[in-house]
This record gives sequence, structure tokens and C-alpha cells, in this order.
Amino acid sequence: MSERVDGRAADVLRPVTITPGVAPYAEGSALIALGNTRVLCTASVEARVPPHRKESGGGWVTAEYGMLPRATHTRSEREAVRGKQSGRTQEIQRLIGRSLRMAVDLDRLGPRQIVLDCDVLQADGGTRCAAITGGWVALALACDRLVREAVLPSSPLVAQIAAVSVGVVAGARLLDLAYEEDFRCTFDMNVVMNARQELIEIQGTAEGQGVSRAEFMQLLTLAEHGIEGLIAAQRAALQAAGVALAEECGRW
Amino acid sequence: MSERVDGRAADVLRPVTITPGVAPYAEGSALIALGNTRVLCTASVEARVPPHRKESGGGWVTAEYGMLPRATHTRSEREAVRGKQSGRTQEIQRLIGRSLRMAVDLDRLGPRQIVLDCDVLQADGGTRCAAITGGWVALALACDRLVREAVLPSSPLVAQIAAVSVGVVAGARLLDLAYEEDFRCTFDMNVVMNARQELIEIQGTAEGQGVSRAEFMQLLTLAEHGIEGLIAAQRAALQAAGVALAEECGRW
Amino acid sequence: MSERVDGRAADVLRPVTITPGVAPYAEGSALIALGNTRVLCTASVEARVPPHRKESGGGWVTAEYGMLPRATHTRSEREAVRGKQSGRTQEIQRLIGRSLRMAVDLDRLGPRQIVLDCDVLQADGGTRCAAITGGWVALALACDRLVREAVLPSSPLVAQIAAVSVGVVAGARLLDLAYEEDFRCTFDMNVVMNARQELIEIQGTAEGQGVSRAEFMQLLTLAEHGIEGLIAAQRAALQAAGVALAEECGRW
Amino acid sequence: MSERVDGRAADVLRPVTITPGVAPYAEGSALIALGNTRVLCTASVEARVPPHRKESGGGWVTAEYGMLPRATHTRSEREAVRGKQSGRTQEIQRLIGRSLRMAVDLDRLGPRQIVLDCDVLQADGGTRCAAITGGWVALALACDRLVREAVLPSSPLVAQIAAVSVGVVAGARLLDLAYEEDFRCTFDMNVVMNARQELIEIQGTAEGQGVSRAEFMQLLTLAEHGIEGLIAAQRAALQAAGVALAEECGRW
Amino acid sequence: MSERVDGRAADVLRPVTITPGVAPYAEGSALIALGNTRVLCTASVEARVPPHRKESGGGWVTAEYGMLPRATHTRSEREAVRGKQSGRTQEIQRLIGRSLRMAVDLDRLGPRQIVLDCDVLQADGGTRCAAITGGWVALALACDRLVREAVLPSSPLVAQIAAVSVGVVAGARLLDLAYEEDFRCTFDMNVVMNARQELIEIQGTAEGQGVSRAEFMQLLTLAEHGIEGLIAAQRAALQAAGVALAEECGRW
Amino acid sequence: MSERVDGRAADVLRPVTITPGVAPYAEGSALIALGNTRVLCTASVEARVPPHRKESGGGWVTAEYGMLPRATHTRSEREAVRGKQSGRTQEIQRLIGRSLRMAVDLDRLGPRQIVLDCDVLQADGGTRCAAITGGWVALALACDRLVREAVLPSSPLVAQIAAVSVGVVAGARLLDLAYEEDFRCTFDMNVVMNARQELIEIQGTAEGQGVSRAEFMQLLTLAEHGIEGLIAAQRAALQAAGVALAEECGRW
Repeated sequence: MSERVDGRAADVLRPVTITPGVAPYAEGSALIALGNTRVLCTASVEARVPPHRKESGGGWVTAEYGMLPRATHTRSEREAVRGKQSGRTQEIQRLIGRSLRMAVDLDRLGPRQIVLDCDVLQADGGTRCAAITGGWVALALACDRLVREAVLPSSPLVAQIAAVSVGVVAGARLLDLAYEEDFRCTFDMNVVMNARQELIEIQGTAEGQGVSRAEFMQLLTLAEHGIEGLIAAQRAALQAAGVALAEECGRW
Repeated sequence: MSERVDGRAADVLRPVTITPGVAPYAEGSALIALGNTRVLCTASVEARVPPHRKESGGGWVTAEYGMLPRATHTRSEREAVRGKQSGRTQEIQRLIGRSLRMAVDLDRLGPRQIVLDCDVLQADGGTRCAAITGGWVALALACDRLVREAVLPSSPLVAQIAAVSVGVVAGARLLDLAYEEDFRCTFDMNVVMNARQELIEIQGTAEGQGVSRAEFMQLLTLAEHGIEGLIAAQRAALQAAGVALAEECGRW
Repeated sequence: MSERVDGRAADVLRPVTITPGVAPYAEGSALIALGNTRVLCTASVEARVPPHRKESGGGWVTAEYGMLPRATHTRSEREAVRGKQSGRTQEIQRLIGRSLRMAVDLDRLGPRQIVLDCDVLQADGGTRCAAITGGWVALALACDRLVREAVLPSSPLVAQIAAVSVGVVAGARLLDLAYEEDFRCTFDMNVVMNARQELIEIQGTAEGQGVSRAEFMQLLTLAEHGIEGLIAAQRAALQAAGVALAEECGRW
Repeated sequence: MSERVDGRAADVLRPVTITPGVAPYAEGSALIALGNTRVLCTASVEARVPPHRKESGGGWVTAEYGMLPRATHTRSEREAVRGKQSGRTQEIQRLIGRSLRMAVDLDRLGPRQIVLDCDVLQADGGTRCAAITGGWVALALACDRLVREAVLPSSPLVAQIAAVSVGVVAGARLLDLAYEEDFRCTFDMNVVMNARQELIEIQGTAEGQGVSRAEFMQLLTLAEHGIEGLIAAQRAALQAAGVALAEECGRW
Repeated sequence: MSERVDGRAADVLRPVTITPGVAPYAEGSALIALGNTRVLCTASVEARVPPHRKESGGGWVTAEYGMLPRATHTRSEREAVRGKQSGRTQEIQRLIGRSLRMAVDLDRLGPRQIVLDCDVLQADGGTRCAAITGGWVALALACDRLVREAVLPSSPLVAQIAAVSVGVVAGARLLDLAYEEDFRCTFDMNVVMNARQELIEIQGTAEGQGVSRAEFMQLLTLAEHGIEGLIAAQRAALQAAGVALAEECGRW
Repeated sequence: MSERVDGRAADVLRPVTITPGVAPYAEGSALIALGNTRVLCTASVEARVPPHRKESGGGWVTAEYGMLPRATHTRSEREAVRGKQSGRTQEIQRLIGRSLRMAVDLDRLGPRQIVLDCDVLQADGGTRCAAITGGWVALALACDRLVREAVLPSSPLVAQIAAVSVGVVAGARLLDLAYEEDFRCTFDMNVVMNARQELIEIQGTAEGQGVSRAEFMQLLTLAEHGIEGLIAAQRAALQAAGVALAEECGRW
């Protein structure tokens, strides 16, 4: 198996730290560091829902994603200056939003919206997965606060969600790609799962070569292994913040 | 197993017809009908490449996707009027472009670009998959024309690519969802494969419930089955157009 | 007189076919073929009116115009990608909207709006005129449906409207210009008339030379002749669709 | 015949004054007052041509149109704030550009562009016609200056162009509509002619009722009459500015 | 002291004329000429307030700024064509709006908004200051009209506001810079004051060299002197329009 | 004197910390904390200059400003989503750019551009001043690196620049306003100075009441005092980063 850029074995995650509560004004927040990748995630609770949810009585969870211009090795243009979000940005924030929406019982949330803002301070590959994993912690903190402040009788959080990337680089199947690996991979996949290792989202892309069913299954196994580590890191972060996770979040 | 809206068995494709050469001015074109879904696909060969390919000497394949305002049951706003393509549109056209780029040897294509325009005339679910499947036929015809007109010595087409949707509706795993099924499904997945059934793209999304590894494998098996039928329909369309497919397109 | 590109005499329309009901989801639709020009027209009935009609109690008729990127000999940029409709597009759709609004008694239509979408699938000159002529058939079908479905007691359709182009090419005055003629003409005019041959819209433009009053009158006579043929084609299409035209539509 | 809002007879122009040279920095300029309508027209000569004229060696003439927010009885939104020019604005500036382009021999103009800016300071109907009539004077002054400054050996101005509105109000055919008349008219037409009374542009629109051929001819006769008066006013303005009009400008 | 471009002494304003009532449809208007700079200012009273003032019961004063494309020595692009106002334009109109808002008691104005449109017809430096000085006259006339038409029992105008530029050119401190001086200055400052010479706005910018506290005080003294002259010109304009200024406008 | 929200005396800065080198990929960076305000500043060196500097041979310094959506007590809309930067944002980034441009000898910088990105992570008033003060440290580090990497023979940094806010709250003149004070102030001013206390930029705004010359001088004295403290904090940060400041930076 080819040596990895940072000496890791193929099935090892980069060091992960999730610091809860870093943004004092937000209802929930977390800074996730995954190797050199850093994403600041905040959860904002708003007393309104989007038009298509108006009549339902239930709530909504959505996400926005951004990257500071100099989060990367060379400066990239600010999207606010360019006047629109790129297709890539929209694709990522739709993925984050869909994934984290699966963590919440929208009816129980009631007529309010939680907006996850995931802003990449430093980018070294895997930013969308880090955003989902860190965003879930921010979301959990915001849900906990709704209960502590007696806005809701019980937390609307019903699942624990994390995400990880896997890929094929020079024929080797690797877990949690750093930027340089991501750049050279021939097949690249982001996997979002809940704590019961059910698939929530899967997005695989051939960047030069397709994968056979057998290879695909190996990638999926790597992903399941990575998700396990991230689920544990999320639980540690909540514990550090003094927040207990409801039983049911392991339900599915 | 729950009865399907049109009486099909769970593992049966809707009737598919691919009519080659419908757009007389385009270098390649095809109209694909998949049940009530209709997508007009044209391939335009342009003597220029995008900036990031300028120095490579090689070419590019890209795609754009659109939907006529009244392709759907109720009229949707025209994107040209709204002043931008939606996130959904951009996500779809990026998927089509990536998928069909895998069918072409870009170096052999030389300093030219092939633009696939996939415009939905009627939408009844599965439009992005139909666009990929029909778009491949338009692409193959354009590549053939480059050889017939002696622009290239041999066709840059190196793979056959098709796409199909699968999903879980009311607990049942179904192939090729119609709109009404798509609307009610709890897990929905688009699968792009080549003729050797290697995965080129996979995009799965829980719309209400995740899927276990076992369920996921069943969905993948359904998709492989559907791809087989679409691959055959593509070959029939090329034959009708008098175009022979190079051996190598079955290569991967 | 100079020979025309397709051998027609100066005062002869290109072959015209109007196929009603091609778009199954729209309240009214027609595909018009005028020589090699093809425009798909749909009429959508919506239960709302624009702000400036809110207080009137009456309805509105409006139009949007688009062209598929490869409707033309070389690919043109998609307006949704460019982020706005061109001045030409806006001018055309305003013309279509104004023209077809004259076919409907807006008070009798009541608090609803009919949107005509005219999308050019193939362009060989005269697309705006074809859009008006075909759009009227879609409009007539939608009005008929409002009566058949008992939404309205009688049809709000009060006039039959058609449009044709005329122009001066190499000194010759010609009816119904094909693209190549349009490209070389020195004066170019679009004429919209009702069944009584009253002028509804007229837009003439010198592209290199003005016209005298005498020449202008000859162009107008050509246009009247062309309108006659188009009016007949529209009636044939309605008949094929089993729709009877109210007496009053010949009224003005 | 119905009494007009300002007591004029049906075939009488409003008082017209064209003041040349009002904008000291522009190569040519004129302020036209037509009744209460006031349009400031400037002609700017630029040493560049648009892309589609690059290879021709010849020049270009184009126009832009604007209206001050409080040119009208109630304030209208500033287009720079709304972020785009309205369809109406684009239609008008395309008309002005096409019309005035017919006044210039673009080959003789050489590799330069003349931009006509027509900004409405006060609007009381007929602003697009006033812009063309006043814009022609600004254009003539700029052409004259190109000769006086020895940039060109002879003036590229080859025709004199003016424009006027006519319409049907309460059954009466009227010349040069004021805003209140324009508001109530059932057919409204703008006519652009050269000094030989050849048609350069004609744009007629039914706002409630079509016109018969006979009525149409009467409107055209009214327009010819009005153009005569405007042509004289233009010549007077040039004379006041000490500019002689080349013989050939009466040529067509 | 260095000779100025137009021979003025360092502490002398350019000739200033303020013509009231030039725009017949606006509730208030003034054309200010300051040397070769000309700004047309209109005040429009609207029976609505912006959202953030909805609940207050009070009114609002805001401003928009524009420049005709050929107000300058070389033509500048029209902002409506470019699709947005420049940062410079927005900065200027925010300055004008804030400054003139200080002239009005918003509570006394009641639930209405006054929009100041300041459009530069000719630009020779100092346009933003001229817009404030002329805009105040338009505002005063609009307030007076609200009283004359008995909409308000007393004028909401509570202060007189004027603005002037000062700067350092080649080491000399100068009042009221013309464009050529502005272009060469090393420090440039716009000062807005009320009739009691209290500072309302101050915006100073080093364009090449900072200024010491002593130099700064000298600039401020020059500005106070210039404001005096402009305050007198404003009063003369109101007098010419037959409008008396309430005592309290000298209050602060 | 009124008690301040955090118990400070009127002439005391909030605690300030500037951490250099926080962004590993940027050529220079600093995180400034001023009370609860946090701004991440990065300096990116690019081998290109804007068009207007192309022919000069010299370089350019510019700035962009952004705020994370949840930097504030309630979430604000992301500018990339809204599709444009607000007038406020543009005004601020123009101020930062102009101010920091004064710190650099653009000729000595040569044909390259330094872009300062100032992104507010937490906002409690004074963000634009913090951005200038922190941005200068990032700029100094980037200039130092150009020398260390032998791109330039000597640093182009020629001045030290810092900024502070002052204002009048409830009649009291205060240094360095926190958000709550800023919100209630009647006159608010941002002052940018170099190490010799010369004025580089000054922007004062009455938010309810003008200030007399005497009051204004007191505000200026407060600002000079605050600048002194910030200049010291900047020097400490550079020292911590092991960067010596050239003598000449105290020059002006």
C-alpha cells in the first residue's frame, strides 16, 4: 500500500478535535479541527420557517457553507464579491442541510428554523464532511438550549450524524483524504451515516476511473470505520459541554 | 410488494426510446423518452477549451441542463427570468458533465470542447438520469462525426455511460422511479455506470430514513439491472443512426 | 425577381404545420413548424394576476420567450447561465404578450393569468412570428378548457391573431423570410394582424436602407396575404383538436 | 374631432426647441424640449469599437437611454438601484441606436464608436422620439467636430433622421401625443424617417383596438407631416451652432 | 501660496448659484451650479416609510446619487447598464442621506418618506458637497409644501445643512477643490455643517500624505468659512422661491 | 461622567491582543481581539496588479471585509447568498484599503498586489478599526516575508497605521465604543493615524446631534490617546513574531 502524505495507515482518521461553544452569541457552536482542516460551525435558532413549511406547523433545518478567501494555499475570490455562490458551494450546503435535517424531528421542533453556518477557516481536504460532523455538535447544543430555556419540553434531536471521505489514490483505498490525496484520487466518495451506521447520504465520483462492486464495498467498510471514530469525537465534545445525549439518538 | 403507479414490477424500467439525430444543426443529438419523461440532448463541438485546459493540449466535455417552464404539472419559473440557475440545476449539470467526461479520452479529443445541452421537455421523474443516458448518445454521434469529417483520426469515445434511479418507497426497493414515486420515497439514489458495471457516480439521499448496508446492496443490484437495459437502448439508437461503437467502449 | 433560397415565389409562405396538444401537462399547447423553424408554445393558467391587475377584478395574458442553446447553427449561450435575458429576448416576449393580450377579453377572463411560454427548438428565421401564431393556438385551447371545465361560462377569446415577417432583400420584397434572407435584408418588418386584417402590431426596421411609402404599401400587402394563410392553419389546428372557434373571434 | 389636452389641432406638433452644445465636455450635445418633455442628448466619440466590428475596419453608433427618477409625475425607481435596465428601457435604446446608425456611414467613420446618451429630465410623452430627434443633432455636432479637428477628412453623416409619435385617441388620429393622450390611446405608433420621408423604423401597437389599413395610412400621413417640422427644427439648431449640413444628408 | 487653476485665492468658493423649483413635477427641487459642477436635486414625498421605520410612526429621509455618463471629461459607464451602483456611489448617497436626515424632525414628518435624488449633470469636483447643499434646498421646498398643502401643521425642517470640500494641494490648504485640484491633492476632506457651524459629517482622506493636527485645524477653519457662503446662497434661493425659513432652523 | 457598559473610564481602550501568524497558508496574518470583537486578518501577496496600475511598474494594496453570519447577536444574512456586498461593507473595505495603502511604498513593492482579508468572527463594535489595526500587522508580516524570501531587497513598509473609534454617548465623550455604546451614541467617529499621530483618515457622523469645534477637539485628543495604545500592541505582536520594524516606519 502506498505511503500516505502524513504517514497514516490507509484506515486511520486524521487527529480530530471538536471544541464546543466557541461562538458566544450563537445558540450552538463548535470548531472542528480534522488534521489541518478547520471549520467553524454555528447553529442559529430563528422564530420563522421558510414559505414551504408555513402551513405544516413544524420547523426546518438548513445550512450555509463558506470559505474564507485565504483558507487555502492560494487566495480564492470572495463569493460576496463575485456576486454569487459557486455551484460547488451550493452543492455542499445542500448536502449539509439535508444531512443534518435527518437529525431532527421537524414536527417536534415547532415553528422555528435552525440555520447551520459552516465557515471554513483552513482547508486541507474533507471540509464538507468536517462541516457535517462539527455542524451536528452545534445543532445538538442548540437543541439542548431550547430545552434548557424551556422553549421545548424535550429535545427534537433524534439522530447522531457524522460524515467522512474515502477514496482511491494510486490504486489504494484510503480513509479521510487530505487535500493532496484528494487532488490525486481516481475515485472519491463522501459518506454520511447515523450512529447505527445506516447510510444517510452517499456521493461517489470517478475522477479518472470507475470502481467495481468489490472495491466499492471496501470503501464503504473504510467509511464505516471512520464514522465510528467521529461519532466518538462528537460524544466527547458534548460531554465536555456538559450536554447529555438522549437515548433515542442512537435509535437510527 | 406495493403496487407501482403504472403497474410495473419493482425491477422493471419504464419504456425507453432514444431517437438519434433529432436536432439538425447540432453535431450530435438524441431525444430520450423514459416513460413520460422527455429530454432533448444536443452535443455541440466548439473549437475552444475552458481556461484551465488551455495549456494541456487536450479537450473538455461539459454539460448544461434546463427545463422548459411547463415541462411539469404546474408551471415553474424560467431560470433566465429569475436571473440565475438554481442550486438544483447546477448540481444536476455538474453531475451530467462529470459523468459524460468519463466517456471521452480528453487528450485524444484535442483542443476542442463538447457541450452537452440537456433540456427537459416533459418531466415525470428521473430527468437527470435520462439526460445522462440520452446525452451519451448525442456525445457518441458527435464523436463519430469528428472521425467521419476527418477532424480526428479515431473516435475519442472510450466508454459507454448510462444512469438510472432507484429508491425505497413505502419500504419497497424500486427501479426507475416515476415522479409520484420519487415524491414519496424515503431513500433515493442515482447511479451512473459504464458498460462493465463499474460505478462512475453514485448519489444517494435519505429523504426520511437511512438505509442499512443490506438494503443498500439490494438497491445497487436493481440499478445494475436497469443500467443493462439502458445500455442496450443506447446501442440500438446508435445502430439506428448507422454508427458503430468502437470495441474499446466496452473496455471500462 | 431574385430567386429565393428555397425556390419559393416572393409571396409564398413556407410550409406551416401547427400540432395542437403536444404538451400533456399544459392547459393548452401547440408545436408550430414554419419551414425549418420549430416553436413549442404552452399556455399555463394560473390563479393569480400581476400586482397592477389586482384591483381590476380582471385577468392578464403574458408571454415568455426562450431559445434552446442549439436551436441555431452555432451554439448560443444559455440565458439562465448568463444571468439575464437579452434585450432581444425581452423585446420579443413583450411583443408576443401584447399581441396575444389583444385576443382575450381580460375582464371576462376573471382573476387569473395565462402565461404563454414560447420556446424555440429550431430557429430558421421568423421565430417571433411563429411564436405569436402558434401561441394563439395554445391560448385558444386553454380558453376552451376553461369553458369545458366550467371555470368560465363562455370563452374569453375574442379575436384570432397571427403574425408574419416581410422584408426587402436585394431590392425584392419577400414574404416570410428564412434566416439566410433575414440576414441579408435591407428592411425587415414583422406584422401582427387579426382575422379582419386590422393591424395589431407592426415593427419595421431599416437594416441598411429606408423604404418609400410605395414600397411600404407593397410589404403590407404581402403581409396581409401571409396572414390569411396562417389564419387558415390556425383554424385547421383547432379543428384537429376538436375545438370550435366562437363567432366573435372573427369580429375584429 | 375631440379637443386635445393642450388645445392643439390633431395634426399640430407641440412647441419644439433644440438647444445645441449644452454639455461642454461631450463631443456633441443637444437639449430637446418637445412640449413639457425634455431630453438631454450627448454624443461621445470613443477610440474603440464593439467586438463584432473589430475586424471590419469600420465604426459603430450605439445609444443608451435613461430617465431621472423624478422626471415623471410620481417618482420611479432608479434602474441602477434595481440592478438592471427594464425591458422598456432596452427596447427604447435599441430603437434609438438602430435609427441613428442609419444616419452614419460606418465605414467612413473608421475604427471609432459614437455613443449617444439620451437622458430624460422631464417626461410628458414622446420621450423616445424626442431622444432620436435630439440625438441626431448631438450626433451631427460630433461628426462635424471630427472633421474640424481633422480626425476625418469628411463627415460620416449621410442622412438626417427624426422621429415622431402618432396615435388613435377616442377614435381621433392625433400627431405627437402628450402623456395623458398616450395613456388613453387605443393605437400608438412611433415613426422614424429620414429627410426624404423614407421609413427607417416603424413601431405600432394596439393598446385596445387594431387599426384598419385606411386608418393606418392616415396615421402615416400625420407622421410625415410631423417629421417635416422636426427636420426643420434640427436644421435650425445646427445653423445656430454654426454647422453646415452636407448635401448628401438629404440624399436618403 | 500656489496659484489655483482658476485664479481663486485659497479661501474663496467658486461662484455658486442655486435655482429653486426647476423640476415641475417634484415636491421640491433645485439646480445647484458650483463653478462648472451642476447637480439637479429633487425631493419626492412618498406616503410610505422603509420597513425599519414602520412601527415608529415617524418618517424617513433618504438620498440617491447618480451621474450622467457624459457629465465628465471622458464618458463613464452607466450604472444601470453595469447592473449595480459602484461602491463610490453608494458611499456618496449614504453620506447625503445621513446629512440631510439631520435637517428633519422625523417624528414631526409623520409616516412619509422624502427621497432626495441628486443627479450630476456636469462634474468638476465637489459633486457630493454640491448635492448636499442643493439637496437641502429641495428638501426645504418639499417641507414648505407639506405645510402649504396642509398635510402637516408645521414644517419638520429643524436645521440648515450645507457641505464643502477642502484639501491640501502641493502643500497649500485650499477651499472648494475643482476636479483638477482634487486629482492632485494629498489630503482631501468633505465637511458637512449646520448653520451653527457644528459638525454633522466629516470625511478626510490622505491620498499621499497625512496631516498634522495643526494643518487639520487650518482645513477646518477654511471649511467653516466656505459653509458660511453656502448657507447664505441657500437662504437666497429660498427667498427667491418665496419660502421663509423657520426660526428654529438656526437652532442647531 | 456616565458609567460605561464594562466599567471602563472614558479614555480607556478595551483589552487588546494581536496574535500574529494564525493563518498558516497566508503570507501574513493576525487575529486581533479588542474586547469581544475578533477579526481574522490575512495578507495575500499576488503576482499581479489591477488594470489601473499595469503601466506604473509599481504595486497595489487592497482590502476586503466580511462578517460571519453569526458574528453578531442575531444572525445576519450571508452576503454571498444575497448576491452582493452591502453599501456598508463596501464603505468599510474601501476605508481599510485606503488606510493600509498609506503604509506601503507602492513603487518599492513592485508589480505585485497585497490583498488584506479582514473577516469578523465576533462583532462587539469597532470592527472596521480593529480590521485596520490587525490588518497592518498582517501586512507587516507579509512585507517582512518578501524580504526574507529575497523577493524584495528591502521592505516596502514605510508607515505604521492604526485606527480607533471615539464617540459621544449621553453627552460624554468616550474612547473605543463597544456595540451597545455605538448603538446609543449621538456622534460617532473613526480615526486612522500613523505613528507620528498624523491623520490618515477621519470619518465622523452625527447620529442625532452635531458637535461643536471644542467637543470635536476633545474627541480627537481621545483618539490620539487610543492610537498610542494600539501602536504599542502592534509593535508587541511583531516582536512576538520575531519581526523588526524598519526605522522609517516611524517616519510618518
